[in-house]
Amino acid sequence: MTTYLIAVKILPRPEVLDTQGRAVEATLKEGGLNLEHCRVGKYMEISVNAENQELALNQVREMAEYVLYNPLIENFELEVKG
Amino acid sequence: MTTYLIAVKILPRPEVLDTQGRAVEATLKEGGLNLEHCRVGKYMEISVNAENQELALNQVREMAEYVLYNPLIENFELEVKG
Repeated sequence: MTTYLIAVKILPRPEVLDTQGRAVEATLKEGGLNLEHCRVGKYMEISVNAENQELALNQVREMAEYVLYNPLIENFELEVKG
Repeated sequence: MTTYLIAVKILPRPEVLDTQGRAVEATLKEGGLNLEHCRVGKYMEISVNAENQELALNQVREMAEYVLYNPLIENFELEVKG
């Protein structure tokens, strides 16, 4: 068994109004910073023990689908960090 | 000028009590899911126009330091998404 660190990146779906993103975008622009667009979501790093990377990704995908993200309004993406 | 999409990943510093992480970890474990540890933070995707990737990263780093993260209790990491 190896310990894998998997990141879960959760963002509101493109068709959903991202109120946090709008607020951050407005604040940055008022501060004179130059950006096109900003979206705000959640980030998690989860360490799991698994036989291999694929099984570790499957375990974390199961967690994401179990409670971490809301499929009605969010999308998620996984990344192997180590 | 090219448009770059840069991700900002913000997590509580290791020495800070991560209450959200503890709660998510407990919920997943109660649900019978097998994990070692979980940390919860914020995730943003920011699109900026810049001459090159290095300047795009600098612009987003400036935003992160301006308002996006709290250096007393958080660390952040940037990732070029496109």
